[in-house]
Parts: sequence; structure tokens; C-alpha cells
Amino acid sequence: MRVTTGWQSSNDGSTAMRRVPIERRDLGSDDIAVRVDFCGVCHSDLHRIRGLLSEGAIVPGHEFTGTVTAAGTGVAGFALGDRVAVGTLVDSCGACPMCQAGQENFCYAGPTTTYGASTPGGYSREYVLRDKFAYPLPAGLEAAAAAPLMCAGITMWEPMRAAGVGPGTQVAVAGLGGLGHLGVKLAAALGAEVTVLSRTSGKEADAIKLGAAGLLLSTDDGRMRQSRGRFDLILDTIAAQHDFAPLLQLLGLDGTLSVLGYPLPAQVPITALTQGRKKLTSSGTGGRKHTAELLAFCAERGIAADIELLPSARVEEALARLDRGDVRYRFVLDLSDLD
Amino acid sequence: MRVTTGWQSSNDGSTAMRRVPIERRDLGSDDIAVRVDFCGVCHSDLHRIRGLLSEGAIVPGHEFTGTVTAAGTGVAGFALGDRVAVGTLVDSCGACPMCQAGQENFCYAGPTTTYGASTPGGYSREYVLRDKFAYPLPAGLEAAAAAPLMCAGITMWEPMRAAGVGPGTQVAVAGLGGLGHLGVKLAAALGAEVTVLSRTSGKEADAIKLGAAGLLLSTDDGRMRQSRGRFDLILDTIAAQHDFAPLLQLLGLDGTLSVLGYPLPAQVPITALTQGRKKLTSSGTGGRKHTAELLAFCAERGIAADIELLPSARVEEALARLDRGDVRYRFVLDLSDLD
Repeated sequence: MRVTTGWQSSNDGSTAMRRVPIERRDLGSDDIAVRVDFCGVCHSDLHRIRGLLSEGAIVPGHEFTGTVTAAGTGVAGFALGDRVAVGTLVDSCGACPMCQAGQENFCYAGPTTTYGASTPGGYSREYVLRDKFAYPLPAGLEAAAAAPLMCAGITMWEPMRAAGVGPGTQVAVAGLGGLGHLGVKLAAALGAEVTVLSRTSGKEADAIKLGAAGLLLSTDDGRMRQSRGRFDLILDTIAAQHDFAPLLQLLGLDGTLSVLGYPLPAQVPITALTQGRKKLTSSGTGGRKHTAELLAFCAERGIAADIELLPSARVEEALARLDRGDVRYRFVLDLSDLD
Repeated sequence: MRVTTGWQSSNDGSTAMRRVPIERRDLGSDDIAVRVDFCGVCHSDLHRIRGLLSEGAIVPGHEFTGTVTAAGTGVAGFALGDRVAVGTLVDSCGACPMCQAGQENFCYAGPTTTYGASTPGGYSREYVLRDKFAYPLPAGLEAAAAAPLMCAGITMWEPMRAAGVGPGTQVAVAGLGGLGHLGVKLAAALGAEVTVLSRTSGKEADAIKLGAAGLLLSTDDGRMRQSRGRFDLILDTIAAQHDFAPLLQLLGLDGTLSVLGYPLPAQVPITALTQGRKKLTSSGTGGRKHTAELLAFCAERGIAADIELLPSARVEEALARLDRGDVRYRFVLDLSDLD
């Protein structure tokens, strides 16, 4: 066993976190040990810390970058000192149709997630995983700002690639947070015209700075009516329950509403799909193929998250501010204070 | 005004129908008068007769074939005696993006439906409409069996065309009724491998006769599990509320569940969409372009509905049997008894 240090939730429904020793497995032949340098704070971390999606005390963190500090005898793709990125998955069955299609995120056996009841995540100083699920961090990507690409970024990337976003595509991003701000950057870089949908106009300047053509105020009934049928794809990152009908109304023929921020069962007005043969879909994170593709694209285009970097000891502050939406646009923890 | 005869509902929640005189407008320059020869009995007729989707006494009927008996001075496309087919729409704005795209069924202004509170439908001996919304009935199509193509047929055709059904596609049809049996025929004719999903194995022989490769019993948990991820498209014609999760489980990566039989808001398990980036969609009937395409395809391949033809005076019997699912696979009324 290897021993490291991390931040563990309290399992009392609060966001209290305490510094604990953590055990990691000894390296198998295809394992690498990664010194975790930077780990993003994802909204699902907050859900899980509160016991919403899982039970028990956890060490969260599933979007991190770091440095290879040890490698098993069978590891060919990484050398000591290499910069790497790790996302939400650290293993999968490899044999099912989804794994065979390069969509390990949908593995029929259930992929091994980066953290869970028995696996401490990236809010820690060291992580051990199969080399296959670590990605070389391309030169030119700043390690702290790149960390959120591994969950928020890939969660936006896969649905826009599946929908064929490119020049001529009209894309709307609903909700401008950790996911949304990367959605704007990525869709704009792919050549789409991007509009941010928001309940407040205060984010318009930011939206434009991120690459959007403008902001559509969802509380402005007149402009919402004028915008009927305007979009090919809406990337819906709203994390709370909400009505899909006003969003579906904004889609054109065969348009797609991709629900990315809300994982619970929802009431869907079927006739709002019928009128224009619209599609409701969802996805989450990404497979190895698309993740590698995303990192290469981001390196080439100079895309990373807009982050606020905090020493990991301030994790509770990050969680509290994330909870009230006070972040532009992703907290990243610097784990070096755990040494 | 022109006067004809038709079958009107009683507006008391029952399926009692009475024979009534009906007024039709005098012909405008681009109108034709059609002697209605055969009109299909659609499940939505039953809903509307009972006041489920609209109020007031109605004369239903929105899939019929007949003969041109008069034409306005500006009508160029039809001559007296021509065989025609009429579907669910008889007008639309012509200017909105949906009409411009040839999807008059999704007209933003709301298309003029073939029957409604103020418009008597095809359970009558004569109908008057703009020539643009009547279709020449191709030679080789039997007029009675072709009538259901105009609602049931096109409702199945549009989603399978939108999904790109062809050789290599795995299509499932859930529910083997008026819509479903045409879905099987059409998908098989397009080259797809078709499976009927049903709660009873009794329809397997019929399914195969219609062109399906087989029947998957949805109550057989073992076979349902084995069929996980098998289909690219499920055409869901089930007319009652039902759980989408077991159907979504049968879809492969990026697969589509098209809900065609149930127009009310429904609870959707978002995570069942997430796992495989699956799409939930819906549509209804079709635009002029696809309707003409469908008729040409059916004429070429010899496809029409499997019908039970009844004199229109037996309309109540047809409705009662439709209500208990006792029809293989579409009732068509012969309106000649109204003369």
C-alpha cells in the first residue's frame, strides 16, 4: 500500500471536509502513480458530498492534472515526470459494445469511476490508475486550467460532436457555469454561432468574451418568441429542475436539446417534441477516443477553463461559493499544500 | 354552399354516431371537391369522439381516398374523375420556416386540420379542399387500403426517413396496430431488419408475414436483457402511458426512441438517455413533400394497409372494436352507403 493525503467529506449532509490519510494500491504492471497537482471542483462533487447521489464519506475529485511519479513494469506510454490528465473514469470492461465503440463512459458493466464509496478521488496528493485511462497533457495547455476539461469540457464536447456542430450551426448554451462556459468556447472554436441563454443579462459581456455572439434573456417573452426555431442544438447545463418546453420552442426542425446538468427523471411535454420532430437527449463525460480528441483540439486552439485557483485547504470555501453560484467559472484546487 | 352527408359524434363521451347533413364551402379557384370513397378509422378519431383532445360534436376522418368531382377555375393538377388521397392537413400558412421546409405538419401558425370543431372530416361523402393538399393516388394502389397511408403511414414514414432507416438499420416497432403494422412494412421495404416489440407472442406470425424478422416479447426479462443496445430506432406506437426505460435500454449508442402513439406529457428517466447518448423524439403525420414521396414508394413496392372494410353505417362497430384492439390492422369505412 502507498499512503497519501486528501480531503474527505463528513457524511453528515454538510460540506465540512477534513484532511485524512489515504491508501492507494501498489502499482500493478500497467499502473501509474500520479502526483495530483490540480483538481477541479465539479458540481457533482457537491451533490455527492451531501449524499445526494451516493452515501458515505468520500474524497471527491474527477478532473485533475498531475505528474507521473512511478510506473509499472508494463507501462510504455508514460515516463516519470510526464504531465498527465485524468477524468471521471479509471477503468471499464473493455469488452462490451460501448467500450468497443470507444465509449467507455457508457460501459455496460458500469465504468470504474475516479471516485466513489471505496475509491478516493482527486482531492488528494496521489492517485494510482491504469495507464490506459490517463492522458498525456499536451504541451501548451496550462495544467491548472486544463483540469476542468476532463469532466466539464468533455461533457460539453461529446454532445456537440455527436450533433455535428460546425460552421453554420446555431448553438445555444443554457446556463453559464463550469460546463456552460466551456461549451461556449468549444462550440465557437468549432465554428458555430453561439448564444448564451440566461435568466440574467449580467453575464452578457462575459458570454461575448467567451466567444458567444450574444445572450438571449430567457425571461424576455418577446425575444423568446422571436427566437422560435432558431437553434440546431441547445446544450442545457442547468443544474436544477426546470421546464423543457421553452427550450424546445427555440429549436428548429430536427433540433436537439441535450440535457447535461440535471440527472433526475423529468416531465417532458411530448407534443413539444412532436412539433418539429425535436430530440431530447443527454450524455455525460466521454470515452477515451473523444477525450484524447478534445485535449488535442484544446491544445491547438489554446482553450482551457476560466478558473479560480485555491490552495486545497480552502476546499470548503470553494464548495460554499460553488453552491451559491459565485464562481467564474470553475474552482481548481492546488494540491501542493498537502505535501 | 354544397350539402353532403356524414357521421357525427354525440358529444356525450360515448361513441354513438349519427348520420347528419353537412355543409361544404363553394369551390374557390384553387379548390377541388372530392367524393370520399374510403376513410380510415384512426385511434385519434376515437380520442376526439370522446372529447379527449377536443370538445364538441365532430365528424372525424383524416385519412381518405376518393374521386375528384369538381375543380375550381385555377386548378391545374387535377381533372374530374382523378383518384386522390387526403391526409390530416388541408392548409397551412405557407410562409413560416416549417412550411418553407416542406413540413406543413409543423406549421407555426398551426396547420388547418382535416377535421375539427368547425370542419367536418372524412366520415362523409364529400370534402372540399385546396388542391395543394390533395395528392394524386398513384395507379396500382388499391383505394381502400391506401387510405390509412395518409395518417398512419406517413406518421411512421417521416421518423424513419429522418433517422435514415435503410439496409443495416435495426428497427423495432413497439405495438402492432394501425400505425405499427405499416411501420413494419415500410421499414422492411427500406431494407431495415425489423423486430416487433409486443407484450403478447400471439402476433409473431403476423409480424413475420408483415416483413419483420421476429417478435421480441417485452415481458420476457431474459430476452429483453439479451437485447440491450440492439436497436438504432424504436418506433413506439403504444397509445397508452408507459415506461420508456425498458425501451431506451434496447437502444444502442446514439439510438432514437420515437414516441408516436402517446401525445401527453410523460415522465422521462434522463439517466436512461445519458447512458448511450440516446434520443427521445416524436413527430406526427407529415408534410407534402414526404407524403408524396411515401405514396410513390408505396405504389412502387405495392405497400398498403391491411384493412377491414366496413360500410360506413357500421362506424360504431368499428370504433368499439378499435377501442378493444380487435382490428387487424385498420378499419376503413366505405362511404358509398351515404349516397
